[in-house]
Amino acid sequence: MMRASGADMAEDRKSAPFAYDGLDRIFHEKARLGILTSLSGQPKGIGFTELRELCGLTDGNLSRHVQVLEEAGLIAVHKGYEGKRPHTLCQLTDQGRARFADYLDVLEQVLRNAARVTRGDGASERAASPKPA
Amino acid sequence: MMRASGADMAEDRKSAPFAYDGLDRIFHEKARLGILTSLSGQPKGIGFTELRELCGLTDGNLSRHVQVLEEAGLIAVHKGYEGKRPHTLCQLTDQGRARFADYLDVLEQVLRNAARVTRGDGASERAASPKPA
Repeated sequence: MMRASGADMAEDRKSAPFAYDGLDRIFHEKARLGILTSLSGQPKGIGFTELRELCGLTDGNLSRHVQVLEEAGLIAVHKGYEGKRPHTLCQLTDQGRARFADYLDVLEQVLRNAARVTRGDGASERAASPKPA
Repeated sequence: MMRASGADMAEDRKSAPFAYDGLDRIFHEKARLGILTSLSGQPKGIGFTELRELCGLTDGNLSRHVQVLEEAGLIAVHKGYEGKRPHTLCQLTDQGRARFADYLDVLEQVLRNAARVTRGDGASERAASPKPA
């Protein structure tokens, strides 16, 4: 109990620079990282089939991850028809977009830490190298 | 069977830009990401207690991840004594260092993809912004 004060907790955090608490598992799982990256680029949403192909997932795997993301309020799933065929559209929610951006900020920090300790900032320099605008 | 030719597999890969197969789970797990980043900066190794504090892990959690990494040949664990007290030293192997660098390259690509689709390269621009040398 004595160690639970705010000051002590701040001290704990400071002393655990590689705890990476901000790497929320809901985003960090690699299939979901692919799904959210795909959806981020398409504000109007992506059909289930196209999303499956972009992410190289099976129907079952994509369904499972889509359900997890929908239950967390990160994506919206619209079930409808294209002609007579069922068509499922997946779309990032505003909350999903904001929280994914936060996750990406943490990931960027992870990479920067790793570059600093392992490669003398080589990775950051590469990320900063000229590329097409 | 007809879809298993090399050309078709290359086509599958090309059509699944967000599959992220290179995000090897052994590195991508966030506790292990912290452990490997910590060890990367200390070629002579880090004691178990210090590593636990750097990564904000419990004894049990750190033991479990250290075992996984040791069995995969990514780290070496030296059990010895400091005076009369048991002392365990964890050290990145050459293989671990090389494979972690490969993983970081993939992670950098993930971030670059996400920055491109979500924020018009904003993240890359931030990564390139001035910082202390």
